[in-house]
Amino acid sequence: MAPNIEKVNLAEKFAQIPDHWNPRIVGELNGQQVKLAKFSGPFEWHHHDHEDELFLVVKGKFDMEFRDKTVTVHPGEFLIVPRGVEHRPVANEEAEVLLFEPATTVNTGNLTDSDRTRRHLERL
Amino acid sequence: MAPNIEKVNLAEKFAQIPDHWNPRIVGELNGQQVKLAKFSGPFEWHHHDHEDELFLVVKGKFDMEFRDKTVTVHPGEFLIVPRGVEHRPVANEEAEVLLFEPATTVNTGNLTDSDRTRRHLERL
Repeated sequence: MAPNIEKVNLAEKFAQIPDHWNPRIVGELNGQQVKLAKFSGPFEWHHHDHEDELFLVVKGKFDMEFRDKTVTVHPGEFLIVPRGVEHRPVANEEAEVLLFEPATTVNTGNLTDSDRTRRHLERL
Repeated sequence: MAPNIEKVNLAEKFAQIPDHWNPRIVGELNGQQVKLAKFSGPFEWHHHDHEDELFLVVKGKFDMEFRDKTVTVHPGEFLIVPRGVEHRPVANEEAEVLLFEPATTVNTGNLTDSDRTRRHLERL
């Protein structure tokens, strides 16, 4: 039986997100979460001690800056950032991004007290 | 430093998949794997005792049949099938699907000896 199983439409969920750098939870499985976020402008340099992160671009594009290179991620492309690796996402135009990461992941990683830290994420 | 971090382009990877119901591994993080598979026709009824599975449609569409309902999943939509729930994917036309699930997941779940069981997946 599949009483509570519903599909998720990404465009419908993104339409409910009015702000930037504020991930929403849209799915959970195996201790991991699927989150959606809109990126705009530069984020903060940070890393995650214990979590690898996947970024899949749905719309727009963004640059993932590393200390030694930059990778531009377009729609239909994803990037996995391993734990411990410093990174900074920068979106010169607005980008819609699906994140896949452990439920324990905080958006600003080691920057636990940034203005942009979001600890209690809304579920859409 | 980010020596081995490369983005993955889904269309480029799907272009390398000539067959159906044979998932390829295209990413790994936190004990989970990102897999890509082409679906065509009906698969087998099965369930997974210990793994939840996410199916994100990239191209085409497919029906996820449950014992009590069917959910049609289109591009830009995903569906999470919780562990223990019997399901059967059916694609009336070819569909390109991204899977996100634990590295331990076998495609036919409790059917451990199906002709379609794939235990050793290629990495693209």
